[in-house]
Amino acid sequence: MRFAAFGEVMLRLTPPESFLLDQTNELRMDYTGTGVNIMANLAQFNYETFLVTVLPDNRLGQVAKSALMKYGIRPNLLHFAHQHIGSYFAENGFGQRPTQVTYQNRHHSSFGVSDSTAYDFEAVVEGSDLIHICGISLSLTNDTRNAAHELAKKAAQAGKKVCFDFNFRPSLNTEPNKFDFMKKQYEMILPYCDIVFGSTRDLTELLQMEKVASEEALIREFMENYQVECFAGTKRTSEKNQKQLQGFLYNRTEQVVSQRHELTILDRIGAGDAYAAGILAGYAESWPIVETVEFATMNAVLAHTIHGDVPLTTKEQVLTVLKNPGIDLLR
Amino acid sequence: MRFAAFGEVMLRLTPPESFLLDQTNELRMDYTGTGVNIMANLAQFNYETFLVTVLPDNRLGQVAKSALMKYGIRPNLLHFAHQHIGSYFAENGFGQRPTQVTYQNRHHSSFGVSDSTAYDFEAVVEGSDLIHICGISLSLTNDTRNAAHELAKKAAQAGKKVCFDFNFRPSLNTEPNKFDFMKKQYEMILPYCDIVFGSTRDLTELLQMEKVASEEALIREFMENYQVECFAGTKRTSEKNQKQLQGFLYNRTEQVVSQRHELTILDRIGAGDAYAAGILAGYAESWPIVETVEFATMNAVLAHTIHGDVPLTTKEQVLTVLKNPGIDLLR
Amino acid sequence: MRFAAFGEVMLRLTPPESFLLDQTNELRMDYTGTGVNIMANLAQFNYETFLVTVLPDNRLGQVAKSALMKYGIRPNLLHFAHQHIGSYFAENGFGQRPTQVTYQNRHHSSFGVSDSTAYDFEAVVEGSDLIHICGISLSLTNDTRNAAHELAKKAAQAGKKVCFDFNFRPSLNTEPNKFDFMKKQYEMILPYCDIVFGSTRDLTELLQMEKVASEEALIREFMENYQVECFAGTKRTSEKNQKQLQGFLYNRTEQVVSQRHELTILDRIGAGDAYAAGILAGYAESWPIVETVEFATMNAVLAHTIHGDVPLTTKEQVLTVLKNPGIDLLR
Amino acid sequence: MRFAAFGEVMLRLTPPESFLLDQTNELRMDYTGTGVNIMANLAQFNYETFLVTVLPDNRLGQVAKSALMKYGIRPNLLHFAHQHIGSYFAENGFGQRPTQVTYQNRHHSSFGVSDSTAYDFEAVVEGSDLIHICGISLSLTNDTRNAAHELAKKAAQAGKKVCFDFNFRPSLNTEPNKFDFMKKQYEMILPYCDIVFGSTRDLTELLQMEKVASEEALIREFMENYQVECFAGTKRTSEKNQKQLQGFLYNRTEQVVSQRHELTILDRIGAGDAYAAGILAGYAESWPIVETVEFATMNAVLAHTIHGDVPLTTKEQVLTVLKNPGIDLLR
Amino acid sequence: MRFAAFGEVMLRLTPPESFLLDQTNELRMDYTGTGVNIMANLAQFNYETFLVTVLPDNRLGQVAKSALMKYGIRPNLLHFAHQHIGSYFAENGFGQRPTQVTYQNRHHSSFGVSDSTAYDFEAVVEGSDLIHICGISLSLTNDTRNAAHELAKKAAQAGKKVCFDFNFRPSLNTEPNKFDFMKKQYEMILPYCDIVFGSTRDLTELLQMEKVASEEALIREFMENYQVECFAGTKRTSEKNQKQLQGFLYNRTEQVVSQRHELTILDRIGAGDAYAAGILAGYAESWPIVETVEFATMNAVLAHTIHGDVPLTTKEQVLTVLKNPGIDLLR
Amino acid sequence: MRFAAFGEVMLRLTPPESFLLDQTNELRMDYTGTGVNIMANLAQFNYETFLVTVLPDNRLGQVAKSALMKYGIRPNLLHFAHQHIGSYFAENGFGQRPTQVTYQNRHHSSFGVSDSTAYDFEAVVEGSDLIHICGISLSLTNDTRNAAHELAKKAAQAGKKVCFDFNFRPSLNTEPNKFDFMKKQYEMILPYCDIVFGSTRDLTELLQMEKVASEEALIREFMENYQVECFAGTKRTSEKNQKQLQGFLYNRTEQVVSQRHELTILDRIGAGDAYAAGILAGYAESWPIVETVEFATMNAVLAHTIHGDVPLTTKEQVLTVLKNPGIDLLR
Repeated sequence: MRFAAFGEVMLRLTPPESFLLDQTNELRMDYTGTGVNIMANLAQFNYETFLVTVLPDNRLGQVAKSALMKYGIRPNLLHFAHQHIGSYFAENGFGQRPTQVTYQNRHHSSFGVSDSTAYDFEAVVEGSDLIHICGISLSLTNDTRNAAHELAKKAAQAGKKVCFDFNFRPSLNTEPNKFDFMKKQYEMILPYCDIVFGSTRDLTELLQMEKVASEEALIREFMENYQVECFAGTKRTSEKNQKQLQGFLYNRTEQVVSQRHELTILDRIGAGDAYAAGILAGYAESWPIVETVEFATMNAVLAHTIHGDVPLTTKEQVLTVLKNPGIDLLR
Repeated sequence: MRFAAFGEVMLRLTPPESFLLDQTNELRMDYTGTGVNIMANLAQFNYETFLVTVLPDNRLGQVAKSALMKYGIRPNLLHFAHQHIGSYFAENGFGQRPTQVTYQNRHHSSFGVSDSTAYDFEAVVEGSDLIHICGISLSLTNDTRNAAHELAKKAAQAGKKVCFDFNFRPSLNTEPNKFDFMKKQYEMILPYCDIVFGSTRDLTELLQMEKVASEEALIREFMENYQVECFAGTKRTSEKNQKQLQGFLYNRTEQVVSQRHELTILDRIGAGDAYAAGILAGYAESWPIVETVEFATMNAVLAHTIHGDVPLTTKEQVLTVLKNPGIDLLR
Repeated sequence: MRFAAFGEVMLRLTPPESFLLDQTNELRMDYTGTGVNIMANLAQFNYETFLVTVLPDNRLGQVAKSALMKYGIRPNLLHFAHQHIGSYFAENGFGQRPTQVTYQNRHHSSFGVSDSTAYDFEAVVEGSDLIHICGISLSLTNDTRNAAHELAKKAAQAGKKVCFDFNFRPSLNTEPNKFDFMKKQYEMILPYCDIVFGSTRDLTELLQMEKVASEEALIREFMENYQVECFAGTKRTSEKNQKQLQGFLYNRTEQVVSQRHELTILDRIGAGDAYAAGILAGYAESWPIVETVEFATMNAVLAHTIHGDVPLTTKEQVLTVLKNPGIDLLR
Repeated sequence: MRFAAFGEVMLRLTPPESFLLDQTNELRMDYTGTGVNIMANLAQFNYETFLVTVLPDNRLGQVAKSALMKYGIRPNLLHFAHQHIGSYFAENGFGQRPTQVTYQNRHHSSFGVSDSTAYDFEAVVEGSDLIHICGISLSLTNDTRNAAHELAKKAAQAGKKVCFDFNFRPSLNTEPNKFDFMKKQYEMILPYCDIVFGSTRDLTELLQMEKVASEEALIREFMENYQVECFAGTKRTSEKNQKQLQGFLYNRTEQVVSQRHELTILDRIGAGDAYAAGILAGYAESWPIVETVEFATMNAVLAHTIHGDVPLTTKEQVLTVLKNPGIDLLR
Repeated sequence: MRFAAFGEVMLRLTPPESFLLDQTNELRMDYTGTGVNIMANLAQFNYETFLVTVLPDNRLGQVAKSALMKYGIRPNLLHFAHQHIGSYFAENGFGQRPTQVTYQNRHHSSFGVSDSTAYDFEAVVEGSDLIHICGISLSLTNDTRNAAHELAKKAAQAGKKVCFDFNFRPSLNTEPNKFDFMKKQYEMILPYCDIVFGSTRDLTELLQMEKVASEEALIREFMENYQVECFAGTKRTSEKNQKQLQGFLYNRTEQVVSQRHELTILDRIGAGDAYAAGILAGYAESWPIVETVEFATMNAVLAHTIHGDVPLTTKEQVLTVLKNPGIDLLR
Repeated sequence: MRFAAFGEVMLRLTPPESFLLDQTNELRMDYTGTGVNIMANLAQFNYETFLVTVLPDNRLGQVAKSALMKYGIRPNLLHFAHQHIGSYFAENGFGQRPTQVTYQNRHHSSFGVSDSTAYDFEAVVEGSDLIHICGISLSLTNDTRNAAHELAKKAAQAGKKVCFDFNFRPSLNTEPNKFDFMKKQYEMILPYCDIVFGSTRDLTELLQMEKVASEEALIREFMENYQVECFAGTKRTSEKNQKQLQGFLYNRTEQVVSQRHELTILDRIGAGDAYAAGILAGYAESWPIVETVEFATMNAVLAHTIHGDVPLTTKEQVLTVLKNPGIDLLR
């Protein structure tokens, strides 16, 4: 299966060793984003993957391209225009201190100011079997929103699988009336989508579906409404200071919840993308739903133990840890 | 409220990533000390703060001054004389391995060899509303001891609040008869003090007060004896390998103990100073005593999650974590 | 003399050890800009200095403020609004390989989107004796241009010295008709200016003054036209691979050219600002014009030997090197 | 007691801060190996220690020698020949992610291609009281195997104590018939050995002794068979994600099991060697068997809290932690 | 034009900042080799490039693959087998101190033990227009030698351009009779070669051609003998401590020598490969021979100013420096 | 020949990459001092060397000991007492910016407060053939002065060679009458000395010998006066910004001046000690005086190209560079 993702490449800047920004002059530079994370992980799983985006037409664009190629993402669908890249500073948390993210320059980035005319969506649709679209594109700018809608439609019409990730951030949508506007955008894109990542909160709070008897019924109703083939996500819980993670997956006929895993967190960001990559791998291989969800959840657990938001796990590594719980040395 | 602290600026040298000194050639340089820590944290809380000290009249003094200004401490009351700065090497512990501190050159530092004539205490008293004096000044040298006594007296006479921190280290006072001598020094300074940080152990072991029925009675007796307005401190406990922290605060009419928090420790040093800064913020704002102690304790908990001994928390950050227990990502 | 500068604070990101951006994940973070550089250097020279700017109202703004305070710049005239900071990546050159600068996000930065209403120019004018305005403010956005004009006018009307730096970058002004527009902006601000930094090229190419018999005549004509008190700048020359620097300074009655110094370059950026700071120090102290220009030129020479664009020289250091040419060890 | 160890010096290359090899260009270089680890730790305990090995006759051999001398290992029995050193890359695990070791070039290293003629075993036997031989020498190459056998025999004949460490790695012995061949090698060397480190698994799986009623009976039978004076080892257990360690020690008349300690793991590798060094220290000092095993186990616990596989604990440090459980700050 | 190179990928380990190996524990990891260097540079020049090699079938092979993809080299012709990678330690020189290279494990690397059966040379020949073979393959092992011969033959027979690089290192060929043997190997491969990189010393010392009247005549005779289309190389000269570089290029009808450039050296290794890449770019574009040699020489000059042996120059960068001598800042 | 040196071990703290102390939080830690430098270099030359000093009886003393052992200096004559080590901060210069050294805590270091009773000078004299005493011991404290005198006397009386290094620093001797006092100290120790390092300035300014017709006559008179066997030193000159170095050596019958070498300076400190080590190597081997001085001078030239003040050259390396001027790559 060949995968493509439409989304923003962001420059992530992280102080070393959990230092705060005022404690060090040193930053680690990474290139990241939901699409990057999922495509990079699927490339590690040995799938052919592409990113559909616009990078700055300058040194930063070249450097970002190098970084994507290093992850194994093919550069064929990258475009280079304008001069800016969105970025974020991540001050990694530790213990009770939360990770602090500060975004910069997303609306005026090369991606943010590019509409559908910047891309060759025919080539995207032709060259891939499954296309991932991140919900953030719907919030970011008019240009990214319109491009996302157009790509979803074209992909669906061409009979390609469309994968969509809610990723709704109330904090990015605080203008008046923005919420209703956003609700409509989500309702517009969902009919084109086959695989959706989200939470019941997305269904009740964003889509404003009524809370029904059970979570299951709610999800089934949502899947019915939009003819969604798979709905999946994770739940984060916490006992004392111990964080935990659990994945769930619904397909047309079955549903399953994974074991609950305790988290040891080296880097908080990107675990959801690792979960999505795991689900997509299971989908591509038609693994049984239980295997898929356990694989995806362990992939997300391991993503917490890897610096940065790009999950660099391989299938073999995930399976080894699933088969040998507690293993701490491989040689 | 304007705060000033009288105390030593020390150069802290720390190997990276919990390495031992014999494992690396790399050291991190920080400028620290009880007064620095508290004033820096109060500056983060947006108070006007000053440090009253003598720094070397050379490159190290200039560099220390830059570091203090970066923390937001105003340089107006810094003096520059002599050539040496006290320092310590901190080999950060990990798990069962304790943090190992090795002091260097404290007695002959610019601060250690400066008596009250080196300072302009009138300006100190006039320019600040609360003056913090660290008990270590009483132990360090004759010069620092006499300066501390003189400043306490002048501040009290001018009607300014005097805040005192026991900080008694038996290991710094091992000469014969030194203990009795030190007891007298503490007894001499306490009558000038309004806010005192310490533990019941300081009362029974250093001041040699008799153990009475309850801890509470002991503290009330102490506060009575010296007409102390507030007495506060923390208690460190441990279950298996899990360390815990709890704060307490007595004012003239009330007393309160905070929740017990589990500690996740990135850096062991400076948490007591964070607690003190939290208490002083509550004092400055006349917060209710319960709010004050919970704020101060969480501030100390967070200080354990920050490298170095200077607590770089803001009020907003402490309140966010108090209101959202378990929160691990802010964006 | 108290100095204030109106200008942008930029985040500079530099790979270590002359690495290219594709060779490392590590970046050094510095806060810089023409105003920052000159005010920081004058603070090192023990003058009271202020920066008049708008920083983001988030973690980056706080971190930038810390950095400015560390340089000794007083934070009183800093404002915090909006969410973005301009930045640039500097890939340091080596030998024949030029330093490569890539700008990001300057037009939409907190500074770029702030007009004169964001500032308290009355306080600026009252609190300082000389106000520096960088020509880049005229190019950046409408908002910064209007604010610059307003500040220049207010300062001049209040009888304060206005210092202006051409800093014209054709590459920032490539839109059609932009050149003529910019010419007018410069012509509008110059009548308010007392001290101007630039080159004869600025006079002939930007102001389109006619080339006359001698460089001297040209400069005298310019100074006459706009009633400029001082005009100063540097000339960079090159013999084989050996770069050289020479400073010049005209006041109302005299003119002088410095010795020509060979450059050893650790960091190419910021030397012009060091020259300006040196000239301003001489102006503040009413040094003889020859001393002033030799001091400023050596300050610029030394700025090439210091990482980053903020010149961290002290007066003593510059004078020591002037008095002891070839000195390579101080202890 | 003077100790010597026969074994390979390996170059360990480790990415910083738990990064994966594809995430960083930076590696930490250490010189390590079972013999190095034990001799270095015993040198920290103030014993005279030697390593008997062949290092490359080039810069890497010189650098390795410097590293060994830094640990306090005497260089007298080092030989320099050939051009290669074995190495391994250690990608440090974190949480559920296991540490990944990748070996390089062990069979063709200077040590791997050196047989007994490369050494002066007479000098080894004469200059030391106890000689440690690592079981890996039996697996590595014909040359190292023959040298190990010869040294064991010579040492035993000279009445010196021989200490042997099973260290059997099935993964290093996967050729057909290799297992039976290896079994014979172990059976050949054991009669010369006085102190043996291993596990009951080594007895049942490698030596193929029959499982008997109790672990104790099995070990006693093994000790009887080969006239072994001491048999010792550790057991790693795990509750949820919490790893634990326990040591055991049998001498001719007694046997003891240590307390079970929870592990906080900074570096997974080398803890077994720390345990061995602790047992050997107790042996050298004729400490009671309980004290010996508690000391050795705590030494192993602390080794997990130190970067690298060389345990840099001192006796005082181990005893301090044993006497003050939970201590987290020494000053 | 599509390029492929047959050759070894080596792991280069370099201490930072010109430190010696005994002064630091930190090493920089890069993946390099003549083929890597040339293909990476041509990929920077926007050509489609491939490397034909065998990498270890373990983590190091994966990491090396990532590194090659980051350079823009396509991974299609990479093979994964065996467990080892050749490596070298480079202690970068400074001033009079020469760079010291220490090789490790080249003969037993995955590349070194792979013969032609490990490759799909048909695919190589089909997928590329020009195939580069490095002379080191002839020296390394029987397997690499035979593979090189076979590939050269197949490529020539298929009418593809074969590019060969003498790269003869006497120090790698010190066994008795090895020299004569090597001479024959070079004589065997040269008839298949169209473009050859070398020096007159290679012709007189290795091929033992007689010195004739002029260098030119010698080269023309060599080109005649083997029907070589182009012969190119560089000459390094030195005046006092100032190193200089000059390139030359002969094609069938013309010959040209470049300007002599002074070198500023950040990294001594890889400049010859940059020269080769420059010549190949000119060849691909059919640039006039003078332009080609000036481009290639400046590319080599710039390669000295870039860390590591992989030249990361772009065509634009080289042309910019050629057109603007002395330029030191681009923004 | 076995060498011992009496002198202070200092902790050197150096910011990386020529940063100023206010630009970085990172420092490199090295253990250094004239005695350390010379003994370390002679150990690199394969001589048996010892340092006679007192180190702190704490972690810093242990770490310093490890560092000395790493250099190959034998630890047998190290003593451990008191708690402090002298240190210095070196801000490495670049181009016209001089290296700035800031000393800390030398007078109260473990070495500074130790008199002859802290040492076993009998063992020193017995265990070595040549004993080096640094003139700084005469300036530092009464204790170090008296110890130096006593050791010089004992060594001379036992017929061992005494080597003395003027190393007079006016800046360390600024108290009133200190100069005359110091002159007497030098006059007292010189009669015991066989090999003396210094300059003619030491003879005229410190010993106040009258300037005579020629430098040669002055030195001969000095050697006569104190029956000195060898007198040696270096002269630093400068043409424009190009520094140069030249060595000289007088023995009883001959005198020689080396070639003048241009310096490329990575680290300014320690070159004089490298020269001394080179002279002592030639003395130990009875090399002809010309060879000795050329070797020593090249050793000093190379010391400028190595970080830190400990010259880590080997004999082979020095000879290679002498024989192959301009060589820049060894493999």
